[in-house]
Amino acid sequence: MTLTLGEIARHIKAELYGAPEYEIHAINTLQKASTGEISFFSNRRYLTWLKSTTASAVILSKEDRELCPTATLVVDNPYLAYAFTARLLYPEPEHKPGISSSAHIDPSAKIHSTAFIGPHVTIGTDTIITENVFIGAGSVIGNNVIIGTNSKLYANVVMYDGVKTGERVILHSGVVIGADGFGIANNKGRWVKIPQIGSVVIGNDVEIGANTTVDRGALDNTIIDDGVKIDNQVQVGHNVHIEEHTAIAGCVAIAGSTRIGKRCIIGGACGISGHIEIADDVTLMGMTGVANSIKESGVYASVIPAMDVKLWRKNAVSFKQLHTFATRIRKIEDNNQ
Amino acid sequence: MTLTLGEIARHIKAELYGAPEYEIHAINTLQKASTGEISFFSNRRYLTWLKSTTASAVILSKEDRELCPTATLVVDNPYLAYAFTARLLYPEPEHKPGISSSAHIDPSAKIHSTAFIGPHVTIGTDTIITENVFIGAGSVIGNNVIIGTNSKLYANVVMYDGVKTGERVILHSGVVIGADGFGIANNKGRWVKIPQIGSVVIGNDVEIGANTTVDRGALDNTIIDDGVKIDNQVQVGHNVHIEEHTAIAGCVAIAGSTRIGKRCIIGGACGISGHIEIADDVTLMGMTGVANSIKESGVYASVIPAMDVKLWRKNAVSFKQLHTFATRIRKIEDNNQ
Amino acid sequence: MTLTLGEIARHIKAELYGAPEYEIHAINTLQKASTGEISFFSNRRYLTWLKSTTASAVILSKEDRELCPTATLVVDNPYLAYAFTARLLYPEPEHKPGISSSAHIDPSAKIHSTAFIGPHVTIGTDTIITENVFIGAGSVIGNNVIIGTNSKLYANVVMYDGVKTGERVILHSGVVIGADGFGIANNKGRWVKIPQIGSVVIGNDVEIGANTTVDRGALDNTIIDDGVKIDNQVQVGHNVHIEEHTAIAGCVAIAGSTRIGKRCIIGGACGISGHIEIADDVTLMGMTGVANSIKESGVYASVIPAMDVKLWRKNAVSFKQLHTFATRIRKIEDNNQ
Repeated sequence: MTLTLGEIARHIKAELYGAPEYEIHAINTLQKASTGEISFFSNRRYLTWLKSTTASAVILSKEDRELCPTATLVVDNPYLAYAFTARLLYPEPEHKPGISSSAHIDPSAKIHSTAFIGPHVTIGTDTIITENVFIGAGSVIGNNVIIGTNSKLYANVVMYDGVKTGERVILHSGVVIGADGFGIANNKGRWVKIPQIGSVVIGNDVEIGANTTVDRGALDNTIIDDGVKIDNQVQVGHNVHIEEHTAIAGCVAIAGSTRIGKRCIIGGACGISGHIEIADDVTLMGMTGVANSIKESGVYASVIPAMDVKLWRKNAVSFKQLHTFATRIRKIEDNNQ
Repeated sequence: MTLTLGEIARHIKAELYGAPEYEIHAINTLQKASTGEISFFSNRRYLTWLKSTTASAVILSKEDRELCPTATLVVDNPYLAYAFTARLLYPEPEHKPGISSSAHIDPSAKIHSTAFIGPHVTIGTDTIITENVFIGAGSVIGNNVIIGTNSKLYANVVMYDGVKTGERVILHSGVVIGADGFGIANNKGRWVKIPQIGSVVIGNDVEIGANTTVDRGALDNTIIDDGVKIDNQVQVGHNVHIEEHTAIAGCVAIAGSTRIGKRCIIGGACGISGHIEIADDVTLMGMTGVANSIKESGVYASVIPAMDVKLWRKNAVSFKQLHTFATRIRKIEDNNQ
Repeated sequence: MTLTLGEIARHIKAELYGAPEYEIHAINTLQKASTGEISFFSNRRYLTWLKSTTASAVILSKEDRELCPTATLVVDNPYLAYAFTARLLYPEPEHKPGISSSAHIDPSAKIHSTAFIGPHVTIGTDTIITENVFIGAGSVIGNNVIIGTNSKLYANVVMYDGVKTGERVILHSGVVIGADGFGIANNKGRWVKIPQIGSVVIGNDVEIGANTTVDRGALDNTIIDDGVKIDNQVQVGHNVHIEEHTAIAGCVAIAGSTRIGKRCIIGGACGISGHIEIADDVTLMGMTGVANSIKESGVYASVIPAMDVKLWRKNAVSFKQLHTFATRIRKIEDNNQ
């Protein structure tokens, strides 16, 4: 797709310093962009590249305009404006409706005529595939599932029986929604499996990354609210409730029955215990361990950052004595008074 | 399914305070249960809900009976009794035997007439599928595999060549059993792949959660003993041996050649080094790092819990000096004597 | 396959102490090897087993020869020699070329006549499958993909549109290459998805373990260079660049736009932040958290090892006061002077 700088500026509400009729056909990094390509500047560590960019135009903030050697589109939030520009230049391709001859669809399932069902897809009884849904090759959709309009499942997604999604949901390959939660009761040293009779309910505009798993509830449902974005390889335990517009980076583990509030940002590889609550607007730095409820919004962390292994060995040993330091320092302070 | 309170009480060996002929058709949480539904009380944090429950009956301990406004079933272990009740009310649905016309099965494979083989399944040479096995859509079973009776594989499971399972094994979607272990030898800065010629042997009554991976052994087999329960997204390295009735929560990483004893409980997102041994009856709290063998049963932990990011920054810096604190405190103590 | 000790010794350039015509048909551990089987000794913790081995021959270092009760093959690096011996005794089975009748292949795709395309595979438009490539059952290959010669994809691998691999690449089951990176921009509390228009480029001789995910780039490509080995359940974020001959153990999380140098060894379950650089020849111990660039080669660590939970509780509490210890000790030292 080709757009003029004027069209882009109007779309992102930018002040344009450059020729409005100039044609842009691609977006690229400051480093690599060339003639006919637009770029953006939102991270000061790439300042050198801004100064030497060969992009035809750059989206940036007012205070950086003078540093840029080419046409500029001035906005308040260049990263967001980049997002809108990229969506304009690279619209999601429309799929052709139709059902692959190799798909295996139960006669009781209702597939809307605008939906696309890929090769080797399996769809169970009484499942409803609504308007404009795309189901990639090899995906397996259980019984009594409802997939909301304009949703897209990439290849090899699995949805267990009874799962429901809202509209415009995106599920990437390898996602498994609705597998049994980890419900076991101990009977004299042996485990008794507890039937997981809840389901999973996913809201509108949710995106879930590759190989992420969301377990079905034990009794109630596991719930993911509108606008939640989840990256790859995240584990969401049974009866977890993730509230609106929270974003969760890759490899996070969320144990059962925990509630995560609205607009949280969970960094990669965090571990969150079960049966706790995390307030709205909480940010967790990567690899944070959360063992107890977090009741106030704010930024939290707990990871010990990498250090030379020799230093680490000494410190790790000292860590085991850490509680003695507190009492010993106190005692010295008392004696010294 | 509908059962009377009397039938349930007999099944879970409960003392019933209520009408034995009262009919129960579902199980639900204390909060949500309504007429005709049974619930249970095993976690004191939900005491408010017990007192106000609208369930028709509640499974609980003797000491809590007076707090409950409705019929009660008194048992020693309410959580276990809930498990048994749920299994009674929600029996695993029986599958119809049969082989989907879209399954691709090698003529040398032996499929028992009571087995179900779903759509788009692939089964390799000389593989044996025994009585009453269920293989979900899209699963791929290699050559020379044996799957024990009454086992259930959900959709899109992969078993590599030569893998063997016991009876009543449950494998959830996305599970991969028998991929090559991470065996590489360094040759002047380049890696040489080592053939992984062992296999994976899984015992009876093992359940493995969605997207978990269990690698085949390098020479010997990787072994998972009877009654082991593994949650989602766990990685089990080559030649690991997990002994009977151990439970492993989600996102745990277990490196190669490690042995985990009987009846252990491994919390979520733990990391366990290779070539070590963990004794029987060890419990690891979530996110614990295990670098050395654990020789005694007990509870272990190591995670630093989340704190405000400003506090964390100061403490993380101090951590690097931790070993100096020990010597400095000792010196002060010596001088002060 | 059966080989003589003489043939093996020549292949691994070993000094043979034993009968060159003796026939070996298998490789096994020191513990389990019996007549006709060869073993190796490279880890001193298994010394007892060396002394009592019933293997017919053992690959080992010069200094260990006297301890071994049977024929020996003396080399400088027994582990590497074991790798070469195993490759000799267990060559990768050759596949028959051919396309399964149940595969769904777009007419515009080019499949080389020597390639094998398994059951229920889907291949998109304009994709190129080169000589001797093996694609396992249920794999889904998008549009405009190129898979280099002699590559092997196990069952249920997914490659999104536009992904390119080099030669001799191995992708294990459940691998997802080229799913969208986690690119979202915040717009007044809601997330706007950013199109991920880069791709993934994988070099020669790369192996990627089961259920690992490698995201496509936002603008540029995500790049994995020649000889990189990645274990299971690793997450590689968008625009990550992993340089030659780096090995990454299971469950590592690598956030976006990070560069990892050549010949690094990343232990299991490490977490690596985005937008940082890790120098060549860096080793990370398992569960290390890397928040900042590592500029010098060396060994790094940060995990707190497991301890008794009572001790841990006290130390975890003290950790929150850690920064006060530094100042208090300093103050005492100053006063004591």
